[in-house]
Amino acid sequence: MTAQSDICLAVPQFASRLAALRHSLASKGQDALVIFSLDNLRYLVNYAGEAAYGVLTANSMYLITDYRFVEQAQEECVQCDVVCRDRDRQSLGEAIAVLLESDGARKVLFESEHISVALWQGVAKANPCVGFAASGALIEQQRKQKDAWEVAQIRRAAAIADAALARLLPQLTLGVSERDMALELDYQMQALGAEGLSFATILGFGARSALPHCIPSRRTLQAGDLVLIDFGAVVNGYRSDMTRSYVAGRADARQQGMYDTVFGAQAAALATLRAGLPAQRADAAASAVLQASPFGQYAGPGLGHGVGIKLHEQPYIGPHCTETLQAGYVVTIEPGLYMANYGGVRLEDDVLITDDGYELLTHAPKLFELPL
Amino acid sequence: MTAQSDICLAVPQFASRLAALRHSLASKGQDALVIFSLDNLRYLVNYAGEAAYGVLTANSMYLITDYRFVEQAQEECVQCDVVCRDRDRQSLGEAIAVLLESDGARKVLFESEHISVALWQGVAKANPCVGFAASGALIEQQRKQKDAWEVAQIRRAAAIADAALARLLPQLTLGVSERDMALELDYQMQALGAEGLSFATILGFGARSALPHCIPSRRTLQAGDLVLIDFGAVVNGYRSDMTRSYVAGRADARQQGMYDTVFGAQAAALATLRAGLPAQRADAAASAVLQASPFGQYAGPGLGHGVGIKLHEQPYIGPHCTETLQAGYVVTIEPGLYMANYGGVRLEDDVLITDDGYELLTHAPKLFELPL
Repeated sequence: MTAQSDICLAVPQFASRLAALRHSLASKGQDALVIFSLDNLRYLVNYAGEAAYGVLTANSMYLITDYRFVEQAQEECVQCDVVCRDRDRQSLGEAIAVLLESDGARKVLFESEHISVALWQGVAKANPCVGFAASGALIEQQRKQKDAWEVAQIRRAAAIADAALARLLPQLTLGVSERDMALELDYQMQALGAEGLSFATILGFGARSALPHCIPSRRTLQAGDLVLIDFGAVVNGYRSDMTRSYVAGRADARQQGMYDTVFGAQAAALATLRAGLPAQRADAAASAVLQASPFGQYAGPGLGHGVGIKLHEQPYIGPHCTETLQAGYVVTIEPGLYMANYGGVRLEDDVLITDDGYELLTHAPKLFELPL
Repeated sequence: MTAQSDICLAVPQFASRLAALRHSLASKGQDALVIFSLDNLRYLVNYAGEAAYGVLTANSMYLITDYRFVEQAQEECVQCDVVCRDRDRQSLGEAIAVLLESDGARKVLFESEHISVALWQGVAKANPCVGFAASGALIEQQRKQKDAWEVAQIRRAAAIADAALARLLPQLTLGVSERDMALELDYQMQALGAEGLSFATILGFGARSALPHCIPSRRTLQAGDLVLIDFGAVVNGYRSDMTRSYVAGRADARQQGMYDTVFGAQAAALATLRAGLPAQRADAAASAVLQASPFGQYAGPGLGHGVGIKLHEQPYIGPHCTETLQAGYVVTIEPGLYMANYGGVRLEDDVLITDDGYELLTHAPKLFELPL
């Protein structure tokens, strides 16, 4: 019994994912892929531990780990042979060599973005007869398109975040600190069933709401403060990511103008979404609203990003992106305005791209004025 | 105002740390060091953000980041020139090249353990005239010996963990779940001032207490269960790490035997500690007690590890280690017995090595039987 116990270990998606990846390898004329990213191992074989490496060949999927994680791997992993390496007697390179040789793999891709120079030197040296080439973001590309099970996990994470925020809002009263509110929100997400936090909650009052990565401080809420809360929950390894912006009490004209601009920019971007859309156009739609407002110079860069096992993953949506949206992508749409030394407003939702539009996965109401 | 606000940014330690590192570089005949580890940047210049790289030359310490973290860097970093890179227009390699050239650095070490193969290829290509060599764990070696300020942070983190555990224990009653107890402990640490958790709290009941990395589950506490809790707090970037073991109610003979054995093994190891001791001998002292007991075959491998900015850092203490303890090292001493499908007992404390012995930094009482 682990926190994973509600995953049915026979979920057919893992077999499909491995099959799709083998198809990619074969189409590139490659015999095997050495996987160094733990996120990618989570995606491929359901492994949630640490200190593990994957070797995918035409016939086998191996997970190499050591005594510390072997039980967890055997319990969690599907479609996978778990190899327990004695680190005192066998280097990682040697362990990989045994597996590649046993499956006759000579042309091998490896995840050069996820292995250190030092560790890779050892692997390469132990495999002198293997022709290695960088895989690029092979698995990350595949991960962009979520299957129904993945979407269900993100939906559950988003629902937890929604509910936690609903529990927090009545506590957002004058005099509370950013830190206490962030701690309360984090607690509520976990009490509601999140296995963890998507990231360290960003929660800022007043001018601090304009900081891109505001670490909650002892700053207390004052009447008229802008409030920005960016947070998410994790369910079965999948993350949600949502931002809401508020004002403590009645908004003044500038605050209301900022909020209405961001709300309009997000709505404009959302209205464009559907499978087949060049993602750039969603960014352009938001940007047009932001730039037509009196606040154009305060617009943040970029519109959003994929979200799933990682908080920030492909596709990235911005003015220079070349992505075309596909059904099954789950992305954030998060325009914002940031006035240094004054405050920021951002609205962020997670959306599933569908053939004819999109589905919102985050549902927290877009209130602005907090009743005080 | 950040969570860091109680650090005096003029702490002289940062200057000393840079001076010591420059001395190491000079003694190796090297002009510069390129730093890719965020933990090492935290240690050297107090940077607590992400997406940053360091370049240390004879005269300068540069921190390269981008718009997302530049304000944080300017606020936090001491003894450091912050360089804001426009990632759309300048590669990391180009940014490093500009700095190395401006300081005339030609022989340059780099942290090959902390940079991916893919990213390093770009850096090397952008610096064709630089002679690069791997630095090894240069900064990690230096980090083994904590200064007074660092010890003070670990002491504060340990005190928070002690206090949080004291608040938890009255709640450890029959029927509570591992998950709820872990969540409560995590909440209490943060409510008591921890800026975060050292790691995902390990908290297991019954047979689950024998799992090396037990993810808290919905398993509830039953009379007679062994209970293992391994957790820590973070203060100003520094971590504590402590384990306590309990039994729910009265211990039976086997449980008491396991506990007494582990207690004795830890006491034996602690009694050996002092600057100048080959760390192997501390392991041998614990191991002798474990192996002389009826439970020898259930002893876990290794005795402990350094703790500081990272949870597990140098020195590592085990049967094969070649370390000699020095004054200022902060290490865990954590012998344990793990009987699969039955349960585990571990006691872990953080200790500061001193010239004539050691100082305990963790102080939670070593009770065993929980009154039920």
